Amino acid sequence: MNETTLPREVRIGVIGVGRMGADHVERITRRIKGARVSVVSDYVRATAETVSAGAPGSRVVDTPEEVITAEDVDAVLIASPGQFHREQTTAAIAAGKPVLCEKPLAMTPQDAYEVVRAEAESGGRYVSLGFMRRFDAEYAELKDALDAGELGTPLLLNCKHRNADVPPHFDNAMMVSDSAVHEVDAISYFLEDPVVSVQTVVPRSTEHAHEGLNDPLLFIFRTASGTVVTDELFVNTKAGYEVRTEIVGSRGSATIGLNVGRVTTQQPGGSWGGSVPLDFRPRFLAAYDAEVQAWVDAVADGTNIAARSATAWDGYLAAAVCAAAVQSLSTDGAVEVELDERPR
Amino acid sequence: MNETTLPREVRIGVIGVGRMGADHVERITRRIKGARVSVVSDYVRATAETVSAGAPGSRVVDTPEEVITAEDVDAVLIASPGQFHREQTTAAIAAGKPVLCEKPLAMTPQDAYEVVRAEAESGGRYVSLGFMRRFDAEYAELKDALDAGELGTPLLLNCKHRNADVPPHFDNAMMVSDSAVHEVDAISYFLEDPVVSVQTVVPRSTEHAHEGLNDPLLFIFRTASGTVVTDELFVNTKAGYEVRTEIVGSRGSATIGLNVGRVTTQQPGGSWGGSVPLDFRPRFLAAYDAEVQAWVDAVADGTNIAARSATAWDGYLAAAVCAAAVQSLSTDGAVEVELDERPR
Amino acid sequence: MNETTLPREVRIGVIGVGRMGADHVERITRRIKGARVSVVSDYVRATAETVSAGAPGSRVVDTPEEVITAEDVDAVLIASPGQFHREQTTAAIAAGKPVLCEKPLAMTPQDAYEVVRAEAESGGRYVSLGFMRRFDAEYAELKDALDAGELGTPLLLNCKHRNADVPPHFDNAMMVSDSAVHEVDAISYFLEDPVVSVQTVVPRSTEHAHEGLNDPLLFIFRTASGTVVTDELFVNTKAGYEVRTEIVGSRGSATIGLNVGRVTTQQPGGSWGGSVPLDFRPRFLAAYDAEVQAWVDAVADGTNIAARSATAWDGYLAAAVCAAAVQSLSTDGAVEVELDERPR
Amino acid sequence: MNETTLPREVRIGVIGVGRMGADHVERITRRIKGARVSVVSDYVRATAETVSAGAPGSRVVDTPEEVITAEDVDAVLIASPGQFHREQTTAAIAAGKPVLCEKPLAMTPQDAYEVVRAEAESGGRYVSLGFMRRFDAEYAELKDALDAGELGTPLLLNCKHRNADVPPHFDNAMMVSDSAVHEVDAISYFLEDPVVSVQTVVPRSTEHAHEGLNDPLLFIFRTASGTVVTDELFVNTKAGYEVRTEIVGSRGSATIGLNVGRVTTQQPGGSWGGSVPLDFRPRFLAAYDAEVQAWVDAVADGTNIAARSATAWDGYLAAAVCAAAVQSLSTDGAVEVELDERPR
Repeated sequence: MNETTLPREVRIGVIGVGRMGADHVERITRRIKGARVSVVSDYVRATAETVSAGAPGSRVVDTPEEVITAEDVDAVLIASPGQFHREQTTAAIAAGKPVLCEKPLAMTPQDAYEVVRAEAESGGRYVSLGFMRRFDAEYAELKDALDAGELGTPLLLNCKHRNADVPPHFDNAMMVSDSAVHEVDAISYFLEDPVVSVQTVVPRSTEHAHEGLNDPLLFIFRTASGTVVTDELFVNTKAGYEVRTEIVGSRGSATIGLNVGRVTTQQPGGSWGGSVPLDFRPRFLAAYDAEVQAWVDAVADGTNIAARSATAWDGYLAAAVCAAAVQSLSTDGAVEVELDERPR
Repeated sequence: MNETTLPREVRIGVIGVGRMGADHVERITRRIKGARVSVVSDYVRATAETVSAGAPGSRVVDTPEEVITAEDVDAVLIASPGQFHREQTTAAIAAGKPVLCEKPLAMTPQDAYEVVRAEAESGGRYVSLGFMRRFDAEYAELKDALDAGELGTPLLLNCKHRNADVPPHFDNAMMVSDSAVHEVDAISYFLEDPVVSVQTVVPRSTEHAHEGLNDPLLFIFRTASGTVVTDELFVNTKAGYEVRTEIVGSRGSATIGLNVGRVTTQQPGGSWGGSVPLDFRPRFLAAYDAEVQAWVDAVADGTNIAARSATAWDGYLAAAVCAAAVQSLSTDGAVEVELDERPR
Repeated sequence: MNETTLPREVRIGVIGVGRMGADHVERITRRIKGARVSVVSDYVRATAETVSAGAPGSRVVDTPEEVITAEDVDAVLIASPGQFHREQTTAAIAAGKPVLCEKPLAMTPQDAYEVVRAEAESGGRYVSLGFMRRFDAEYAELKDALDAGELGTPLLLNCKHRNADVPPHFDNAMMVSDSAVHEVDAISYFLEDPVVSVQTVVPRSTEHAHEGLNDPLLFIFRTASGTVVTDELFVNTKAGYEVRTEIVGSRGSATIGLNVGRVTTQQPGGSWGGSVPLDFRPRFLAAYDAEVQAWVDAVADGTNIAARSATAWDGYLAAAVCAAAVQSLSTDGAVEVELDERPR
Repeated sequence: MNETTLPREVRIGVIGVGRMGADHVERITRRIKGARVSVVSDYVRATAETVSAGAPGSRVVDTPEEVITAEDVDAVLIASPGQFHREQTTAAIAAGKPVLCEKPLAMTPQDAYEVVRAEAESGGRYVSLGFMRRFDAEYAELKDALDAGELGTPLLLNCKHRNADVPPHFDNAMMVSDSAVHEVDAISYFLEDPVVSVQTVVPRSTEHAHEGLNDPLLFIFRTASGTVVTDELFVNTKAGYEVRTEIVGSRGSATIGLNVGRVTTQQPGGSWGGSVPLDFRPRFLAAYDAEVQAWVDAVADGTNIAARSATAWDGYLAAAVCAAAVQSLSTDGAVEVELDERPR
């Protein structure tokens, strides 16, 4: 029998089991190979109890610290509110445990940089950041085509990000931190070329935008190599959830997210077409699964961070670019992105 | 001045100005270069008067014979009911005048063959038959790709023909003579290979089909070279007008009519797509224009029949195949198509 | 701790680890949640050893019987050659163990019926049959649309099945048993309406077909309710792997497999488009994963057969229809499908 | 006979018969109903002779003035180099003759404004400007959808303009005057809302761009109502000619130019797709025909300017916006567009 190599199941501690964290617990319990949830905590103890009940073999503890230091926790998944991410991620590094942290890595570039430095000083690789789009099949196919040189040099990256609607408290800053942040990381993923400046362009708003929200918004990013990225954000389309990305290269251009494919129908009245989901969850369900599976596999084989995954450095880049983008909301012209040196 | 070559305008006599004929008069008057309607007749004199009033310089006569023999008629367009086509086309041949006859060429293969023989015996080329799809841009592009060898040997031709609905008197025989006849000519156009047999397959009918109509119907044609043609006819889709054609060749396959292109929208509720017309007229408006223009150009340059046009022989082939198709409606298995020799 | 419900991992015995079986072992080992391969056998012992080495915790035995009766085997996956499926599946039923058997269920309708009867007499539900397309996302979406009534009554089902090429021994009978069999099961899946007759239409063959193979072939199936199914098989397209399915219903039609979507490029020379895989494996990789996961989940919860899965009865239907299809290869006209009563 | 209304053929004088002018002469001679070319002039007399020889009934004169004042010229088509447009258009106004002038209307906003004023002072309507895209079927369909309110309020207009390559003398200023000018007029056409500012964004250039050309370029226009227009120009794609336009509205978005439709093929190696022309002429051939036909019809019915046509005022707007765009090439940030009052 091949017993000697019988793999240990990765035991995961989950901090924060609101909607996103509860999704992860269910995912790990039902679909992720080679892992199980062993410990759960939440600010609201009752929530943690409920979620734990759905994860056989798991138990509830009171604090994030207890999750991180638990003996039966091999790796930590952080889905708590963003303001706690820096502290919890740093604690995981200190405990020498791999961690998958939902975005953002921290609330400021300075705080994010601290995590980067903590990891660098630890001498290990611990931090994966939850930018799930990197694991989407279309994203991966586009990335592979670019890396294979099929498109030549990337000159432009055009992104569109559309939601049917957003809650009333969603404001311009959230347009950056919740929506544009995904395209900011897409720049890191596709181009591997740091953003040096960002400009906001404010078109007239839809009549469906609430007070205090400019919708749509257009961000223009420029990378160190001069690639220009346009990011159109429109979060009250009243249509569906849609993410479209085009890379314009010197040898060809390629687009994903055209919403063509799947079931195409011919319908009464002469219309033809299909439908897109109203929400991001069906669109990226498989990407989340692939992200967590790749993370578990990396933890199991000791590399800790999957090849496609965003790292703490990507989280720092996203924080720095988003800070500049927020500043650009009230600035005429481009705002420069200030980046510290990457520690070694 | 280049006066010597100033071209004579082609003066066209139109027989039958119901909906189709009136469309042709309007087309010639407004859009066809180098032609004008000079004489008009109709079974209902008042209709002819009305239509003629919209065609400056035209006059009304009482009979088809008067149209054909008029001194101010260079070429004849026949849009009368089908049962008069044989006689009127033959009269045009006898008068030595080019004629564009709407389908069908005649009501029986025997009658159609008489027209073919009359033209052959005249020693001239006079008869164009109004299968307008041959002039549709997509049809032409597909034909050109096939002729250029891009698809290799044609093995299968798959046709779909869909209408939103049909009038109550539309029966199985009209499914052949009014609808399938277009695909029968498409076989002549694309494959230039005579049909040798036809079989009808009768699926369960839609609940929207009226008494006495089997809808959809599937015809399976086989050509002399063994290419198989499937023709799906569905005339109560309650959706829109749609014509789809795929050629499956030994080196590639190609499809037209996918209804993708034009304006593509993203709409409330998450749907995306476009729309197709409910009626055949918008779909083939440009094809009709191109057909009549090509005919007028051919008349003006003395060749009389445009390169892409269906001829009397194509009309005979269509009549023979449709006769077999009608017979196959009540036959188990395939019905052979009987063809006479082409006269020289 | 929620220990009481800690689930037992399903221990799977795999019979036959050639290409398909080895894929399943790798799948279960790396991606399927809640299962591991415990026992492996193969006609070639060395092959079993090699494959087992990649599945930690598994061991090799000499015979299928040993796999089926092993104490550390909760469920059996059969990927041996088809001629052994009847016997091995029946043995699994006798052992009271759930079994996922690759197609075919048996080599003749009679043999397949014996498996159906054996399962019926056992009083339990044990047999899942490996028609993986039922778990393909597009197939599932189309099935759900049909079941939701969006398309009305299904009138026609049009299937196209294309391979870039096939090995030299692939003959007309394999066109039925290896290729068309998938569309035969698609009829069961989508229409849940037994096939009553089948006719073969033989077009001219591509010059790329080897001696003794008619390629393409067209099968026309008719169900008890009168729905007509056309199945075009073309296995030497020299293009890519493609599976296209259209359901034409009384309230709308819907198509999957249009190969539009994913990455769309604009390329040198003015071409645009994308690419399809040359092989069926990338096309249906996710479907295989979903199939095996659904089976494992069903075994774990005691239902044994997943909701979308093909059953022994579906295997019998496929065998009966394929037998008639093979007969129709050398028959003029339609061949009736003879079905025994479903045992209760 | 309906003789009294027999229409006079519109006799057209053509100034400048290089490639574009010669195309127009051929178009009018072969395809435009109700018009003929009567007089031709060109800087190179021999060119005029050659072109005139292909237009039966036409004669050659030495100067533009002779064309404009000729008794047998009812309307003037100007296809001379741009620096002569102001003078020739003004002369046509003075002669009381309708004129279709190829873009640009003049070389400076001031000169263009003079034409606007000259027409206003004449009390008549004479000037049509040759922005042919307004007559493209897709453009027209999108315009009609917008005007019908189907998209709600237009918030963003995204344009892409791609050429396979450009001649060596093509520089950044020509990027504005020859390429972007079409999208500048598209703003007038779709939005009917004047541009108030323009900003240039300069991405890294393709390695295929020659010295002195920034390629691609991105222009960002803002209209008086706040609609933002992005215009991506990329003229050395080495792919094909492509024009894509998306209107993002508050009730839906719509795209044209997706290059999907027409003939779609499946090809050896697993690729699927279609092809686009390498040149703008096939893409807009039908639009040119429709433009000239609409102009001739308008001249014949005395309205002189077709409903969809660009006017002198549109030409002035294009000149003013392009002047600002050229200025923005060397300016950091947005450049304001200065507009004079529209004379009445």
